[in-house]
Amino acid sequence: MSDTPRLDSIDWPADLRTRSVSDLERIASELRRFLIDTVARTGGHLAANLGTVELAIALHYVFDTPRDRIVWDVGHQAYAHKILTGRRDAMATLRQYGGLAGFPKRDESEYDAFGTGHSSTSISAAAGMALAAARTGARHRHVAVIGDGAMTAGMAYEALNHVGELDCDLLVILNDNEMSISPNVGAMSQYLARLLSGRLYCSVREGSKKVLEYMPPVRALAQRAEEHVKGMIMPGTLFEELGFRYFGPVDGHDVDGLVAMLSNLRDLRGPRLLHIVTRKGHGYAPAEDDPCRYHGVGQFSPDAGLAAAAQAKAPTYTEVFGNWLCDQARIDARLVGITPAMREGSGLVRFSEEFPDRYFDVGIAEQHAVTLAAGMACEGLHPVVAIYSTFLQRALDQVIHDVALQNLPVLFAIDRAGIVGPDGPTHAGVFDISLLRTVPNLVLMAPADEAECRRMLSTGFACTGPAAVRYPRGRGPGTAPGTDLDPIPVGKAAIVRNGHRIALLSFGPLLEAALEAAEAIDATVVNMRFIKPLDTDLLERLARDHERFVTLEDHALAGGAGSAVLEALTALDLATPCLTLGLPDHFTAHGPRERLLSDYGLDAPGILRAIHGDGRGEPPPPRKAAGRQPPQSERDA
Amino acid sequence: MSDTPRLDSIDWPADLRTRSVSDLERIASELRRFLIDTVARTGGHLAANLGTVELAIALHYVFDTPRDRIVWDVGHQAYAHKILTGRRDAMATLRQYGGLAGFPKRDESEYDAFGTGHSSTSISAAAGMALAAARTGARHRHVAVIGDGAMTAGMAYEALNHVGELDCDLLVILNDNEMSISPNVGAMSQYLARLLSGRLYCSVREGSKKVLEYMPPVRALAQRAEEHVKGMIMPGTLFEELGFRYFGPVDGHDVDGLVAMLSNLRDLRGPRLLHIVTRKGHGYAPAEDDPCRYHGVGQFSPDAGLAAAAQAKAPTYTEVFGNWLCDQARIDARLVGITPAMREGSGLVRFSEEFPDRYFDVGIAEQHAVTLAAGMACEGLHPVVAIYSTFLQRALDQVIHDVALQNLPVLFAIDRAGIVGPDGPTHAGVFDISLLRTVPNLVLMAPADEAECRRMLSTGFACTGPAAVRYPRGRGPGTAPGTDLDPIPVGKAAIVRNGHRIALLSFGPLLEAALEAAEAIDATVVNMRFIKPLDTDLLERLARDHERFVTLEDHALAGGAGSAVLEALTALDLATPCLTLGLPDHFTAHGPRERLLSDYGLDAPGILRAIHGDGRGEPPPPRKAAGRQPPQSERDA
Repeated sequence: MSDTPRLDSIDWPADLRTRSVSDLERIASELRRFLIDTVARTGGHLAANLGTVELAIALHYVFDTPRDRIVWDVGHQAYAHKILTGRRDAMATLRQYGGLAGFPKRDESEYDAFGTGHSSTSISAAAGMALAAARTGARHRHVAVIGDGAMTAGMAYEALNHVGELDCDLLVILNDNEMSISPNVGAMSQYLARLLSGRLYCSVREGSKKVLEYMPPVRALAQRAEEHVKGMIMPGTLFEELGFRYFGPVDGHDVDGLVAMLSNLRDLRGPRLLHIVTRKGHGYAPAEDDPCRYHGVGQFSPDAGLAAAAQAKAPTYTEVFGNWLCDQARIDARLVGITPAMREGSGLVRFSEEFPDRYFDVGIAEQHAVTLAAGMACEGLHPVVAIYSTFLQRALDQVIHDVALQNLPVLFAIDRAGIVGPDGPTHAGVFDISLLRTVPNLVLMAPADEAECRRMLSTGFACTGPAAVRYPRGRGPGTAPGTDLDPIPVGKAAIVRNGHRIALLSFGPLLEAALEAAEAIDATVVNMRFIKPLDTDLLERLARDHERFVTLEDHALAGGAGSAVLEALTALDLATPCLTLGLPDHFTAHGPRERLLSDYGLDAPGILRAIHGDGRGEPPPPRKAAGRQPPQSERDA
Repeated sequence: MSDTPRLDSIDWPADLRTRSVSDLERIASELRRFLIDTVARTGGHLAANLGTVELAIALHYVFDTPRDRIVWDVGHQAYAHKILTGRRDAMATLRQYGGLAGFPKRDESEYDAFGTGHSSTSISAAAGMALAAARTGARHRHVAVIGDGAMTAGMAYEALNHVGELDCDLLVILNDNEMSISPNVGAMSQYLARLLSGRLYCSVREGSKKVLEYMPPVRALAQRAEEHVKGMIMPGTLFEELGFRYFGPVDGHDVDGLVAMLSNLRDLRGPRLLHIVTRKGHGYAPAEDDPCRYHGVGQFSPDAGLAAAAQAKAPTYTEVFGNWLCDQARIDARLVGITPAMREGSGLVRFSEEFPDRYFDVGIAEQHAVTLAAGMACEGLHPVVAIYSTFLQRALDQVIHDVALQNLPVLFAIDRAGIVGPDGPTHAGVFDISLLRTVPNLVLMAPADEAECRRMLSTGFACTGPAAVRYPRGRGPGTAPGTDLDPIPVGKAAIVRNGHRIALLSFGPLLEAALEAAEAIDATVVNMRFIKPLDTDLLERLARDHERFVTLEDHALAGGAGSAVLEALTALDLATPCLTLGLPDHFTAHGPRERLLSDYGLDAPGILRAIHGDGRGEPPPPRKAAGRQPPQSERDA
């Protein structure tokens, strides 16, 4: 007998809508159980998804999806939505090679109205859809679901500001789980907390007491709120000032209450904002207790929870960075560390504890993070901006206009460069070389291993202008980083194997593969180290006694490091033939990093195949969407 | 006898501070006169600068500059600041080759605390400086001066949100000249208008009546405001909610009142926001009457004002785009036009009048503009985003993540591509090819003339995925655009001259120069048209009967179109030697576009020099800062 008999009979939202409202709470309970079991097997985002179970059910119950459009901001909280929209069985393949994506994806399901991954795009996208519907006369409804964290991004404000003055039928659901985010960042977060403490929960009524028992902080807050309610003026003023009608806050785990509230709001016109309060990890005690740790997880036992972190493994690149940052900060008072809301992911936890006055979490605000750093650098500090490659795309103008143009000393520690794996194309760090190497004044490095990563961070920090070190997700070959803080010479590559005829020029973490391939053909191998400035002296010397260069990078070929080598050879008027290996001109799929690198021919066998002319870096066959097709009746012409 | 005797004796802010407050109004009057005469001779930004005369005087009078830091957002309103800080005489060289920059620039003067040009960076930068001062114990004060337009950008909100929760000593001056901007955009703008209409001007008192006579709308507003004042609750709530202490609104043309207010605010702690109201073009009737037209001007007669627009000249690229947009919109109901606050600059005035329902000015909000377009494209519309090359840098992540990854039909009309001229390096559009050609799914075009620009816009609009057309500022060779809307074949270049030995591969507007050079050496000339996809078939054919390729582009060489050719030759295993001509790896200076292109060897003589090996594309000698050095006593150790 199934643990989830009610859920088993719900393949599509249309099935859900045949149930009575009183069934929804038990369906939510089963869905939560299913979700925990699924993520325990596949890994993935857990805490955020446990927080949106009731919301996903209520939305699909009240709205006529897929005709009505729901845009899930970031999308790492959309698992319940996937389960309810024809993908329950496919959840076993979540984030696996060839399986379901970890984020909404338009070509996976027509219920995924907009592909997400990066934060704070939902209001803009849903507004675009609503404006389009107004033009075409379509009567779709439009909902953006956005977290309080994503509200710190300027993009969300740009959208609110624009939509607020339009006659645009859009419902923004602000999913506020602030109580579970540590630490809170930004005035908006404090503002939301004031709203909570100063206003009666709409749904604090007899019927929801049972739900509230499971969330003591909210309950206590609600009780306190009742005392304060008479003293309140104009809750939600900020949103009202921006032109939205504000509703809430309401309990986001009270599915009945949500259904009632959404039914009321569904057919109102104009910009509306519903403020709901949820708890990350809700309903699973280990995740409630430590939502940060349960934000993104690997496999685990649902009963035992996550195992204690294994000890004594080689550090990840992220940890190498975190350790370097603390060591460098200790000897140089100019160092400050800045993160756009990625303290854990970027390895800044220890730094934030040991140097709280020099640690700045600016919220999901990449643009501000970079220009804040520029301002600090003007006054003699030396900021280190820790940022994922894919999120640096958000701040490129600030890198160019505020940092590089003024030649200010800011070090960019670019984590998750290259193929990132299960997070897939929205998070792939495969464009940063092209974006950064066109920027004057910037030094750009890619370490081949952990020890070199540390030395490059020291090198970048020793620069008097902007510098960047790009390193991949996860672990490297295990080369123990030293404890010193000595830089390496800027612009100097290192020959790591002397061979004949062919010189393999490796940029970054593919050096191991290059060495393995070189053994088979007795090639020279160079750890290029610097993408900019390139070691053109060495290229000139190598050209004298090699017949061919082969460049290697975990990055798009268009404009990448290999392209920099081609430019240098052209400028030097060297005719050495070159083979460039990297990623072809399409977006990468999700799956294990090693598997994807192998698919693209970026392992030793692939390198040898390319050199021998047996095809190189060919893309894997296009992946079919793993979701089931909805029954014809649900398709909206 | 000088027209400006008082101003003549003020070389530095220290001189200004020796005057009595009662002198400041006359100094302001002289400064305004000087400013009009200067811009009449040099061209430049006029209306915005006339609006900040009193503010610049009051700031330098009250604050201890350069020790205290003033960051002028955008910076096109900082002429009065330049005049007061050692650069009065040099103003004759403003925006001229080798002369003063049109924006604040750190290496021009120590009074320019932060280089600006792009909008909405000032709060982040000044906050960085304030946080740095807090760390180093420096007792500088920090001021960001930001317009109401710049407040629509997400970056400003990111900074407010972050700073609002910090114990950061920062004064933000919101320079609100909304009454003169047409049309107003965004809920923030409406919010500010409500503040104005609902609150008494702080400085409406006897002493300021004289000033107010010169600004009747403000005066009338102030009078109306007095009637409303009792009905107001919580002005500035929005800023207060974000953690700022709000002051104002005050009359920004009442220099005495400003001095008094700034003196009061100067030494308060924490984040403060002073809301001042100014009028673009203030004190110069023609500019007051038409501030849009007087935003940026060429030379003119101060007495007669700008001459009527000359007729019957060939259209600019901007006009070619504007005309195409209207024509295409007429036959295709899917077309909508989106601009991030650049209606005039991007040539959208006529479209906005003829198709008001299909025209979207989203404010200075590039990120939102692009994702709004993506949302619209999901629902069957075909958005055209008109954006300057340099501002597209702000939305690159959205181009990648929201448009290209989902392969949505959005056309980017990229104006001001290449060297822009007097606006200088902050506005140079010399990186877009590198940024865009690494993005999968995107078609990227560069027209050689106006007629081709029109056809490429049609071509991009006919694409089922994202496409972009990049075209330069100003006029082209004068090739009359047709009236049809026929596309050209995607990815096909055109041989425009058959020659021998050398093939000149020209991308975009340098085709004329290529043809001129080719005459001298009987070279083949190809109008490449497409940067992506590149016409590799043609490259293969040309390689058979040419000894050498020469690529040509008004873009950075690093990752540019020439680099795309090198990649293609490598992929095709062609050994044809290549010479790539474009911009070297440093930021370009300001000056006339033709002159700068010539400096970089991107005219016919330069092309021939490069082909003959007499040096190519060498940068001009570094420009010395044109400002005078301040007296020793003003330097802050």
